[in-house]
Amino acid sequence: MRARRPGPSVRIKVVEGGRTREDRVVTEEPLEIRLQWPGAPARRVWTTMRTPGHDFELAAGWVRHEGLATSVHGVAYCTDVTLAPEQEFNVVTVTLDSEPRTLPHQHEAQSAGSSACGVCGRDSVEAAIATTGRPWTGELPSDDVVRRLPGLLREGQKVFDRTGGVHAAGLATAAGDLLVVREDVGRHNAVDKVTGARMLAGDPEAGAALVVSGRAGFELVQKAVAVGTGALVAVGAPTSLAVDLAARAGLALWGFASAERAVRYC
Amino acid sequence: MRARRPGPSVRIKVVEGGRTREDRVVTEEPLEIRLQWPGAPARRVWTTMRTPGHDFELAAGWVRHEGLATSVHGVAYCTDVTLAPEQEFNVVTVTLDSEPRTLPHQHEAQSAGSSACGVCGRDSVEAAIATTGRPWTGELPSDDVVRRLPGLLREGQKVFDRTGGVHAAGLATAAGDLLVVREDVGRHNAVDKVTGARMLAGDPEAGAALVVSGRAGFELVQKAVAVGTGALVAVGAPTSLAVDLAARAGLALWGFASAERAVRYC
Repeated sequence: MRARRPGPSVRIKVVEGGRTREDRVVTEEPLEIRLQWPGAPARRVWTTMRTPGHDFELAAGWVRHEGLATSVHGVAYCTDVTLAPEQEFNVVTVTLDSEPRTLPHQHEAQSAGSSACGVCGRDSVEAAIATTGRPWTGELPSDDVVRRLPGLLREGQKVFDRTGGVHAAGLATAAGDLLVVREDVGRHNAVDKVTGARMLAGDPEAGAALVVSGRAGFELVQKAVAVGTGALVAVGAPTSLAVDLAARAGLALWGFASAERAVRYC
Repeated sequence: MRARRPGPSVRIKVVEGGRTREDRVVTEEPLEIRLQWPGAPARRVWTTMRTPGHDFELAAGWVRHEGLATSVHGVAYCTDVTLAPEQEFNVVTVTLDSEPRTLPHQHEAQSAGSSACGVCGRDSVEAAIATTGRPWTGELPSDDVVRRLPGLLREGQKVFDRTGGVHAAGLATAAGDLLVVREDVGRHNAVDKVTGARMLAGDPEAGAALVVSGRAGFELVQKAVAVGTGALVAVGAPTSLAVDLAARAGLALWGFASAERAVRYC
């Protein structure tokens, strides 16, 4: 029988004010994602530190955000007999219907050798634009809805209440209904889980607004753009490259969102 | 003549309360790190999204945290003639005195093929322990000093005041004097810059305490342990794997640090 994976939080001992007591911390474990398609063996493509739970969603969403596929044939924990028991729930294999047109982005960027080439923000924006999903043509959330979204996201955060240590992401309708909320120690992972949840539920349509508990960096905008979301609403600040990409891709970008205010970047 | 790199923040237009005004956002640009040593051509080993500034420190600190070298022969912007002007300040080459014993961690982890192997938290902790620096034998900061450190770090944050969008890291003595403070859109980059600043200043000694503005995840503990720092003081929460590694490596780990409280994990 397989060992149980640790849950999203574990009890540990802490010292506070000179006394020892118990507390909960959020669980962090590596997840290795392998990719396979008909006629090809599974290959390792990515490893991320994540909060265990919704692992299949994380893997499926990551695949979509990387522009590898818009749907997956299946996702399963690896049953490789050489895996030690504690590794079994840290390796997932994503099966695609066909060979992807490109190799995973990160893999490609890092496996290249000493050829003369370089990166710049413009290259990054161009590469992200190339994997853009169908642009959002539906309604966008109003200013009032945008200011309500962070509070709704916070209400949906179960792990945060116990540990104070995780990021959250959610997908909302233009009217402000949260369709799905996911948490993870990594803010990128939380967004992957949200997209993967929609894919595995058989509803690959983009949503009106992606809401995130942290800042809006380039990679989060890249993920929103890859799916074709209408707006990205962040509790924190955006970066210059995030603003650039959002403008190029037609994504409505909001930062510093709270009940009191929300700033739209354009 | 070369174009100037963008500074740590840029002006953009925002809409707030129906009116358009100017605001500053933190700059984010990719930085490609290349590695070379006597007899070997430069090879690309890593790309990170970072806030421009202190790029040489970032590269040097990253090299040390990855266990590739404890000092560097030199760091320079790449002068490859094929680079476009906007790429020139986004590629740095680190020259080592000799060939590193291992390839960069991330590169190795992702370039492996379909061989049967997997990851787990225990593997990650073991790998981190293998690159541990000389354990800290000096004095550790007292409870009072730990509670003062986040405020001192905040005072040193120049970019945050203008943009609200960056993380900070600092190195402090046991008495609570901050030796260096660095900011970056990525919290790992900020820590790389702190270590690199000490290396390039010719002082590779570990400090009593590394202070970080965010959470204490596994990778931050890994960096602190690689240098041989005495304590990691985080404003946010730690994760389970961070607590595991800190305990194994003998690093004092503090979370939720503020003027009012600080929690020691053990």
